[in-house]
Amino acid sequence: MKDLTLDNMTDVVISSIADTEDPRLKEVLSIVIRKIHEAAIEVQITHAEWEGLMNFLLAAGNISDAQRNEFILLSDLTGLTSLVDLIASSSSPDASERSVLGPFYVPNAPMIESGGDLIADNEGDPVVALGRVLSSTGEPIPGAMMEFWQNAANGQYSNVDPTQDDNNLRCRMLSNDDGSYEVSTIRPIAYEVPDDGPGGEYMRATGRHCWRPAHLHVRVHADGYEDLVTEVFNTLDKYIEEDAVFGVRSSLAIPFNREPTPDEQARFSHVASPFHMVDFDFVLQPLG
Amino acid sequence: MKDLTLDNMTDVVISSIADTEDPRLKEVLSIVIRKIHEAAIEVQITHAEWEGLMNFLLAAGNISDAQRNEFILLSDLTGLTSLVDLIASSSSPDASERSVLGPFYVPNAPMIESGGDLIADNEGDPVVALGRVLSSTGEPIPGAMMEFWQNAANGQYSNVDPTQDDNNLRCRMLSNDDGSYEVSTIRPIAYEVPDDGPGGEYMRATGRHCWRPAHLHVRVHADGYEDLVTEVFNTLDKYIEEDAVFGVRSSLAIPFNREPTPDEQARFSHVASPFHMVDFDFVLQPLG
Repeated sequence: MKDLTLDNMTDVVISSIADTEDPRLKEVLSIVIRKIHEAAIEVQITHAEWEGLMNFLLAAGNISDAQRNEFILLSDLTGLTSLVDLIASSSSPDASERSVLGPFYVPNAPMIESGGDLIADNEGDPVVALGRVLSSTGEPIPGAMMEFWQNAANGQYSNVDPTQDDNNLRCRMLSNDDGSYEVSTIRPIAYEVPDDGPGGEYMRATGRHCWRPAHLHVRVHADGYEDLVTEVFNTLDKYIEEDAVFGVRSSLAIPFNREPTPDEQARFSHVASPFHMVDFDFVLQPLG
Repeated sequence: MKDLTLDNMTDVVISSIADTEDPRLKEVLSIVIRKIHEAAIEVQITHAEWEGLMNFLLAAGNISDAQRNEFILLSDLTGLTSLVDLIASSSSPDASERSVLGPFYVPNAPMIESGGDLIADNEGDPVVALGRVLSSTGEPIPGAMMEFWQNAANGQYSNVDPTQDDNNLRCRMLSNDDGSYEVSTIRPIAYEVPDDGPGGEYMRATGRHCWRPAHLHVRVHADGYEDLVTEVFNTLDKYIEEDAVFGVRSSLAIPFNREPTPDEQARFSHVASPFHMVDFDFVLQPLG
């Protein structure tokens, strides 16, 4: 009879999935099982600690619902989500870096024209974001579908804040023939990720805060290119060096305070002064 | 501005928990975070795969309730639970090996005298389990609190089967002055772990079955000794080499078919013949 020991358990478990039909699943599971076992052995995990882990995962399941996946938050807070983005970006070093999609994305936001306005009756500091959508091979990409979303002056996103209209501070727009885009909005602000579940418990136990520095979320799709999901950060934010979810990259961070040129001042005269400019180009990777 | 890359992300995340007050938690988290990151990088996990993982964990949370923790089942099915047992057993090599507590344990089962009977009106093959509770230093342990639980002829345990009385095939008993114990019961049978959730999905995807070989569950407590939670397996079971949860150890497996001696035949004349004997000693590790 084959005996199970600390020395052979991992190999026995990996052998047990030898009949996995999907070769990629088999590869992934083999690696994940090995790493989980290595962690348990290196930690010399006790039964009480294992039970604590099981209860922690159960609590994460309990607080999750159709709107909230606490496992994603835990992935964010432990850098796993950003690691997924970094892995994806590593194969397209000339394209814009990716950053977390987050829980506030909503598909099918209203289409507006480039140059349109999201401010409406929002309080906050007006800014005009503008730039171009480019291929990593250099040429501009016209007709790229850009999606923008961000938080309001109270720090909340419209999909989780009943005081906001459903599509407040959200839009879709197509890039112009020269790849350019422009949109007036308010300057997003720092906010805290939810701390009322196991994610918050983790942050308190590890002496961390739940703040994310101010950012614009952007998703760009163009036929023939890899989709880009990213964020543009304000380097002037006090939390820029300590994003709770590790989303900041220096290539994605700029000061959100450039003064408009006289031409821009005139071109955006419909925006309440004083306003500032946020310049960012989005660079897409051609498909395979 | 400190940049985040594939090369430094793990160290940045581990640095972020530098203020963790509990030194053991800090050690455990540092190792676990590093192993999770290593797995993600070695797998070169894609965004779609990560999303699949997040949905899998969410589904495990959704199917869990006060009676069922699907994360424990997943831990069982991937050998993690047994690894915890093996780690615990490695510090007490002269004691009985530990094996999974499982979801069917219920505290405070009825006390019976050693020699008592659990068969009542249960169908099944009668057996008499007997042996001693011993210290790993050799001497018998009188007055050890032993808890037994097992499944019925339909494969189910009483705490999840409304057709059984609450305490069917469960008891607590104290070992005798010479450390011995005896109990008549039915031979437990193989059964399947629940396959209607993510645990079952994992087993189907990996070409595995959900069967566990027949076993008696035992928990032994004696003052001055480490608690023992273990299982005694029937080597004659067809699944003995392929326990879905990796609980079998050769030191915990014996054939459940020894013929009674004439003396035993007389001593257990109240048990319907033919019956068989199951011999097992439980060896406890003195504390500290």
